[in-house]
Amino acid sequence: MKKTVLRSYARLIARKGVNIEKGQEVVIAASLDQPEFVRILVEECYRAGAGKVVVEWDYQPLTKLHVRHQSTKTLSHVEKWEEEKWQHYVDRLPCRIHLRSNDPDGLRGINTAKLAKSRQGQYKVLKSYRKQLEGRYQWCIAAVPGRAWAKKVFPDLSPARAEEKLWEVILSCSRVTDDPLQAWDEHNADLASRCEYLNNLHIRELRYRAANGTDLTVGMIPQAVFCGGLETSLTGHSFNPNIPSEEVFISPMKGKAEGIVYSSMPLSYEGQLIENFCLRFEGGKIVEVKAEKGQEQLEQMVSMDEGAAYLGECALVPYDSPIRKAGVLFYNTLFDENAACHLAIGRGFIDTIRDYGRYTGEECHQMGINESMIHVDFMIGTADLSIDAVCEDGSVVPVFRNGNWAF
Amino acid sequence: MKKTVLRSYARLIARKGVNIEKGQEVVIAASLDQPEFVRILVEECYRAGAGKVVVEWDYQPLTKLHVRHQSTKTLSHVEKWEEEKWQHYVDRLPCRIHLRSNDPDGLRGINTAKLAKSRQGQYKVLKSYRKQLEGRYQWCIAAVPGRAWAKKVFPDLSPARAEEKLWEVILSCSRVTDDPLQAWDEHNADLASRCEYLNNLHIRELRYRAANGTDLTVGMIPQAVFCGGLETSLTGHSFNPNIPSEEVFISPMKGKAEGIVYSSMPLSYEGQLIENFCLRFEGGKIVEVKAEKGQEQLEQMVSMDEGAAYLGECALVPYDSPIRKAGVLFYNTLFDENAACHLAIGRGFIDTIRDYGRYTGEECHQMGINESMIHVDFMIGTADLSIDAVCEDGSVVPVFRNGNWAF
Repeated sequence: MKKTVLRSYARLIARKGVNIEKGQEVVIAASLDQPEFVRILVEECYRAGAGKVVVEWDYQPLTKLHVRHQSTKTLSHVEKWEEEKWQHYVDRLPCRIHLRSNDPDGLRGINTAKLAKSRQGQYKVLKSYRKQLEGRYQWCIAAVPGRAWAKKVFPDLSPARAEEKLWEVILSCSRVTDDPLQAWDEHNADLASRCEYLNNLHIRELRYRAANGTDLTVGMIPQAVFCGGLETSLTGHSFNPNIPSEEVFISPMKGKAEGIVYSSMPLSYEGQLIENFCLRFEGGKIVEVKAEKGQEQLEQMVSMDEGAAYLGECALVPYDSPIRKAGVLFYNTLFDENAACHLAIGRGFIDTIRDYGRYTGEECHQMGINESMIHVDFMIGTADLSIDAVCEDGSVVPVFRNGNWAF
Repeated sequence: MKKTVLRSYARLIARKGVNIEKGQEVVIAASLDQPEFVRILVEECYRAGAGKVVVEWDYQPLTKLHVRHQSTKTLSHVEKWEEEKWQHYVDRLPCRIHLRSNDPDGLRGINTAKLAKSRQGQYKVLKSYRKQLEGRYQWCIAAVPGRAWAKKVFPDLSPARAEEKLWEVILSCSRVTDDPLQAWDEHNADLASRCEYLNNLHIRELRYRAANGTDLTVGMIPQAVFCGGLETSLTGHSFNPNIPSEEVFISPMKGKAEGIVYSSMPLSYEGQLIENFCLRFEGGKIVEVKAEKGQEQLEQMVSMDEGAAYLGECALVPYDSPIRKAGVLFYNTLFDENAACHLAIGRGFIDTIRDYGRYTGEECHQMGINESMIHVDFMIGTADLSIDAVCEDGSVVPVFRNGNWAF
């Protein structure tokens, strides 16, 4: 891929993604797949005004070794210096860039229960830091090709060609055009108008129906609003948390979900694929899960903590979104979630409460925002999906027909 | 390179290099060049009994960016969480493996003064941790090929072939034979007998002479002993700090060095090459430096702190050592120092004092061990180098003739 294009993408992430404030610290989490792009991104962060850029490298194959060889106690332990690092984040509020490139099935065969237990143990310690950070810093998830990921997406191409092809679709889906900053301003304006329309409907519940058997009703929180594209942190900085992003989303009312929903794409969770699955809800809670592949992984996921069995997000993405039209199954949530309507189980977003800065996190949760250590999106959008909004005045307004916006 | 050979090398580093104790933590510092080898090394550390292995990745091109764009204040600052990490090292004494692969000239053009200043600033904070760690943990420096490094060493080969060739010489110099553990036991026994011979001479000073103009006399510390190969930490663990290692070394008496010494190989210091240089000593102190290339870098180096202008090590390596016989100029201290007699400026080794565990670090320094934030080896061995030992009884014993052991 040409360096000028990569630089343009890096600039987009630094300036529109996290929108670095002069002198601000930036933390980049990256795998080892594209060091040269990371170098360009670091340079663009400095050019955008960063006072300090720290890269936290990660290498997926080591995770498998750690989980196999360390005791659960060691895996679950958070060292004092690591806690101090989280405290540093709370004090300084650095921007966070997550560069995704991992093999979607790279942790296959890992001891799922042991990994889950270690995450739970760590979360006990990290929870209070996470809560203090919530809504207070700019973050952005973007992607770069990893070799194994590219091969999974384009199995018929040579490794080099698959990587090149994955770069092409990542950049095109991310609107890295001649002027990406301008393209994103226009795109964000479009998403904002969709949100405005939906928020003016005063929706009480959303009803999902599809031929695959999906028949689900989800209740809304009266104080919640649809969001999409640009967000604003409590510290007053606008940022784009996802590049790309085609979704309009809201966090639903905890405890209000009835029916069954079928997945329409595979889900990569903790480095392993779950395929062809369905979830049944009663009183908002998942009471049954079935998966053709990854049953154990799916059961583990919905029992990570109390909130992992409840919904945290309803996201609306038209079936003919540019990303789905690319005709590629990415096996990567950042992309697949922007190719199809999806739900998330686990943690909801407190910033979907109108004027959420006026409330404590606790108050937002009392209004109905779900709380959990996990937040996992899964795709449910199909070509025939229909969604109706039941409004507070009792009227029923079509939101989606045949997988696309009805308005 | 074959996986079985790489695994054999990794096992050597884990078992003979740092000699991991059951349950001990291991910290590996590595660049991004050979992730697959790092994976194998991590696995071999676990197999050798490690309770936890942490990899600290480093990417040289980012250093250039940080130095260019961060303020000197930011560069010099050690965050509280970083100090807490050093405290963790002091408390837990993890083994440390340094995998070297960087481009010997990869930081060319960097602001040398700014980099030096930031290192000095950091050292002010880290000094007390370093002192608490001194002699108390197992460590090992070993090498893996980096692409730029391989190209520098074998400029006429293709990148892939240069990397393969560098692997070959690294493994052969490191005695990765059919049974490397056995080979190292034998090699260590040989080095130990050399040390015994030298220590029984009770040397007062070493006199270096060569046709290039080298004419230097260095005074010894009465309580110091020659060491080589296997070392033992104060915690009672034996380890091999360098793979490969061909040297027999001692820390000389601070303040006792007179004359001039000429380098016989280029020196890579802080990612930049210094070539064809000489140092003149008076009363143990460097009073003049001259370099055909890297003069500024060399001046910076010897003025990093007070101790940077004094010697910290005298190392004896025969001119026909297996590493020099490989006929390769590595531009890497780990290898080049084992191909030629060398000296180091800066920090001396307190563990060269006989029974050093009975003394405090302070007492060792009072005996004459130099103290500094840096320790930089530079090569002086030539085909005609002669070294005489002037012993306490006044006798003069030839130690080196024509670049090789005289005994």
